Amino acid sequence: LNSNNGINSSDNSFWQNLFAPNSVALIGASNTPGTWGFNIMWRLLASERRIYPVNPNVSEVRGKPAYRRLTDIPDSIDLAVIVVRASLVSAVLQECTQKGVNAAVVISSGFSETGEDGIKLEAEMVETARRGGIRIIGPNTMGHADTSSNVSTLAWTKEIPPGPVALIAQSGNLGNRIALQGINLGIGFSKFVCSGNEADLHFEDYLEYLGRDEDTRIITAYIEGLREGRRFFKLAREITIDKPIIVIKAGGTKESSRAARSHTGALSGSEAVYNAAFRQAGVIRVGGDDELNDVALALLHQPLPRGNRIGILAIGGGLGVVATEACEREGLVIAPLASVTIEKLNAILPPRWPHANPVDLVGIGPTVDNSIILSSLWALMEDENIDAVLLQAPVAIGTSFLSTTFHFNAEEIKVFDDGQKQNLDMLRKRAAECGKPVLVVTPVNDPETNDYLLRERIPVFTSPHRAARVLRHLTEYRGYLDANQS
Amino acid sequence: LNSNNGINSSDNSFWQNLFAPNSVALIGASNTPGTWGFNIMWRLLASERRIYPVNPNVSEVRGKPAYRRLTDIPDSIDLAVIVVRASLVSAVLQECTQKGVNAAVVISSGFSETGEDGIKLEAEMVETARRGGIRIIGPNTMGHADTSSNVSTLAWTKEIPPGPVALIAQSGNLGNRIALQGINLGIGFSKFVCSGNEADLHFEDYLEYLGRDEDTRIITAYIEGLREGRRFFKLAREITIDKPIIVIKAGGTKESSRAARSHTGALSGSEAVYNAAFRQAGVIRVGGDDELNDVALALLHQPLPRGNRIGILAIGGGLGVVATEACEREGLVIAPLASVTIEKLNAILPPRWPHANPVDLVGIGPTVDNSIILSSLWALMEDENIDAVLLQAPVAIGTSFLSTTFHFNAEEIKVFDDGQKQNLDMLRKRAAECGKPVLVVTPVNDPETNDYLLRERIPVFTSPHRAARVLRHLTEYRGYLDANQS
Repeated sequence: LNSNNGINSSDNSFWQNLFAPNSVALIGASNTPGTWGFNIMWRLLASERRIYPVNPNVSEVRGKPAYRRLTDIPDSIDLAVIVVRASLVSAVLQECTQKGVNAAVVISSGFSETGEDGIKLEAEMVETARRGGIRIIGPNTMGHADTSSNVSTLAWTKEIPPGPVALIAQSGNLGNRIALQGINLGIGFSKFVCSGNEADLHFEDYLEYLGRDEDTRIITAYIEGLREGRRFFKLAREITIDKPIIVIKAGGTKESSRAARSHTGALSGSEAVYNAAFRQAGVIRVGGDDELNDVALALLHQPLPRGNRIGILAIGGGLGVVATEACEREGLVIAPLASVTIEKLNAILPPRWPHANPVDLVGIGPTVDNSIILSSLWALMEDENIDAVLLQAPVAIGTSFLSTTFHFNAEEIKVFDDGQKQNLDMLRKRAAECGKPVLVVTPVNDPETNDYLLRERIPVFTSPHRAARVLRHLTEYRGYLDANQS
Repeated sequence: LNSNNGINSSDNSFWQNLFAPNSVALIGASNTPGTWGFNIMWRLLASERRIYPVNPNVSEVRGKPAYRRLTDIPDSIDLAVIVVRASLVSAVLQECTQKGVNAAVVISSGFSETGEDGIKLEAEMVETARRGGIRIIGPNTMGHADTSSNVSTLAWTKEIPPGPVALIAQSGNLGNRIALQGINLGIGFSKFVCSGNEADLHFEDYLEYLGRDEDTRIITAYIEGLREGRRFFKLAREITIDKPIIVIKAGGTKESSRAARSHTGALSGSEAVYNAAFRQAGVIRVGGDDELNDVALALLHQPLPRGNRIGILAIGGGLGVVATEACEREGLVIAPLASVTIEKLNAILPPRWPHANPVDLVGIGPTVDNSIILSSLWALMEDENIDAVLLQAPVAIGTSFLSTTFHFNAEEIKVFDDGQKQNLDMLRKRAAECGKPVLVVTPVNDPETNDYLLRERIPVFTSPHRAARVLRHLTEYRGYLDANQS
């Protein structure tokens, strides 16, 4: 038996129906722009599957014939998406049972989040669902998506590109912001679930499912409160051995804890207890959405560092100073260079380089010839005192920057660009081979150059503070794995 | 007499010649792409003034006849920009004296930053300059710019838009990154100086000059070490009463302090001493480039809050929870709502709104009708318990988001857009009138929407943590002014 309700856990077909349905009914589909029923219809029609709008007041929705009731649909239905008002949801669930539907996404709000009447409605809805063997995402959810099966009930999120990151959010709006920021960084998602009120399926159910989901390599989450804390930490301990889990856990201060209680009824619990439990389960706890995506970006594209000894390579002393300070404040070590590295750099750099970490590429001047940068980078990566490199030098330059600042013509840009693509390939390959991550901190805030690096799967950060924080998380996670992997 | 050298301080014409020269000679001008002499020639030719390349080995540079020596130029010269190698700089300065030039930018490196020989060269250069009455930016500087006179010697920075923010950087590369990030946020600059080795003009000279510069309303800086600490803090105390000063002071940790010493020879000094001195002088100290630009953005477009009591308005409970936590962690107060505000919001929001701060716009659902958001915002701004508002709701939506997510056609977009422009005008006006800043935290990470808000001069931040940090700085600065303004 599942821990949270009486449904036989051996029937797991509802997962398939939630995340890869062949046919979907949208109960409350609408032709009115700006409504959930309208926007979700758009989303559903973006995939190839069979979609059936249900609405007794219209004859068709976006070219599809509308049905008065779910039970009128002359086809089997795998997933019911429900956007009707709260008081009608239980009746729709009864029709689901008649129709043999065992999976539903209840978008409708107006349940336990609204007070006593809503709590009663929600209890009634859960009771109906359990009697009928229906598993539910929501209610009061902003939807869910699976990029592998190409299903989405996310009315207000733009199309999500596929990738190995899963996201479970106990707030639809915040989940949306996290996902959209991730998309801007080139991060792709396997599954995205806004868990809503978690009246039936709990955060822990999604976590368990994603733990065994083959499309998911990294799990990210926004948590306000855990209904099954013990189960969460047991699952997390098992999962983090194979897949990193990155979480924002909110409500850690007095007023935010009160606000969380008012939002989802979640009890945020003690900060110290949560921190200790996260640490013991190998969960990476981050402070906010920026940091969550930063860590995911690094985990996606770079290996974990064996330790916390950082080599810094910078085109300019000031960049090196600030990056050094940022690393030290995160508890990282600015590694002394091995003597063989100093010899190598002596052969590459002019005599007046500082002969120490951070390595200032002083004297190479502004240049588009990045062979000196790359040779110096290889030297640092080969240094046995160094576990990871923070790089603040142009390993790639966006094409419009080349044209406006270096006055390159189209032919010159092409030749140069081919070269830098090869360099970035080599960088990725060498990082993987030696097991040392290279994080780039943009030396110049040129959005086009940053996008270029992200497209080439090189993690890039707009400040050394952000990169240093990521390095701390990677280091701690690697330390956890070393201590716990068999 | 100036504190740092023997030049009569009553002759201040060199400032005019540095920042608004009518004629400029570039000694070391070059036709070779990728060199300083090539790129600075491009920059100089972007303005209308008289530009004279000096290079004995070529007949012309970018269409301008080249002169063998500075003294061959048949015109008076206001500013000499010098990019020849270090060992030749003193000779060029002697020609400056012959030619009556009293202002020079010495881009050339290879001076005190390189060791003993360089230290001797630099001392010799300063001696030559002082004998000849020449004031110098640099050496080893990445250049300077004045957008009012439209002069720039910044070889590697894209064109800087005009505006009221000045930047003094003790690292050219870091200054560049700060400036370019600011430009991405729509920040405009009055002057930008990379102070280089500060062999002649010190950081404090620039600060004094910018304190009385009419084009400058906000002064920002990257500092590794102060040569005239006492003078800095005396000046800062005077200036911050009228113009905020925002600084990054690096080298506050063991290894970063060592790195700073190796970079510019700067002694970083004790963290505690610096922090106390900054506080006593009303200087806003920030942790990095992101934060520097965030604070500048808010100071540019919004009033200072009278206190630290924050009202939070969010479209979604999770957004409110996270913003509340971020504010509390910065020592800000989540203000209890006045009863009159609760009454106002009762009339605007559905009954189940949380009746407390943070105000969750629950139940308004996704909408492009932002009248509810605005009415709620005005109610919070009128609340006597609230000094500033952190807003996480769509007060504006970018046009492509309207088209892809709300399925608006071109005509609908136009009508909607006119309306939201008027709303933003009103927001700015009301914030100024009631003296309460409104900082927007993007509810959706849509770059186009963020750019839209920035163009409309509404400060927008990608996370509540960044906004909360800005609010702390604004609050502390206002507190300083209240205690120190007469």
